[in-house]
Amino acid sequence: MNDFTVDERILAESELVCSNTFSNIYLVRDTDLPWFIIVPKIKDAVEIIDLDSEAQQKLLDQINKLSSFLKAEFKADKINIGAIGNVVRQLHIHIVGRFFNDRIFPKPPWGLKQDINKEQAVWTQRFKHCQNIQQLFN
Amino acid sequence: MNDFTVDERILAESELVCSNTFSNIYLVRDTDLPWFIIVPKIKDAVEIIDLDSEAQQKLLDQINKLSSFLKAEFKADKINIGAIGNVVRQLHIHIVGRFFNDRIFPKPPWGLKQDINKEQAVWTQRFKHCQNIQQLFN
Repeated sequence: MNDFTVDERILAESELVCSNTFSNIYLVRDTDLPWFIIVPKIKDAVEIIDLDSEAQQKLLDQINKLSSFLKAEFKADKINIGAIGNVVRQLHIHIVGRFFNDRIFPKPPWGLKQDINKEQAVWTQRFKHCQNIQQLFN
Repeated sequence: MNDFTVDERILAESELVCSNTFSNIYLVRDTDLPWFIIVPKIKDAVEIIDLDSEAQQKLLDQINKLSSFLKAEFKADKINIGAIGNVVRQLHIHIVGRFFNDRIFPKPPWGLKQDINKEQAVWTQRFKHCQNIQQLFN
């Protein structure tokens, strides 16, 4: 993992909320969607099938934990999960909390991020809230 | 499972290619994308976290098999996986083979299906080809 790096396009649109042995977890700067991105620390992985069985289990566990967090802490009406990677080829998985009244519901969120300034109160509060996930991944 | 039914909106846009103890697997009628939908036979499931651990393992196994099939048999350049369900609430997972030169690459496929007539040669051939997955799920 020594030469593991994260694609700069992920780094440009999100902030790190949790680093653990398996992955880095980012929170996308979006106005009204609590939107996580899991980036497994596995060099050159592109598809979920590139992961061995043990790594897939860890990924599934992290997807479960983030989904439950979005339900419990943000009262999400629906969880959207996606592994797409058509633009950013590095394996990354989106876990997005959706609300019946969010600005783009029922559309999928991809390509429709609405960037938020890191100084804005709604972002500051959400980012702080999401940093609590660190304890889930120790 | 006795009263398990599949949402009519899934049935309207796809054809059944495989039924197994865990799920029904459908092939979406799309012009140029080999596009599977897994529908677990679990009544009232909406989110992946609604599945117990055993069911999640079966789902992961089926995602792996379909992803490998798309790579091996259709030479897909990328696999797109999504669990969205904002419109059709019944739990269903999309596994889509993508190509650098498909008509909408690199956009995600959701909402961009291009329906194909069941009589067309490209569909007939793909559907027949995909029926071979039945042996993977026996």
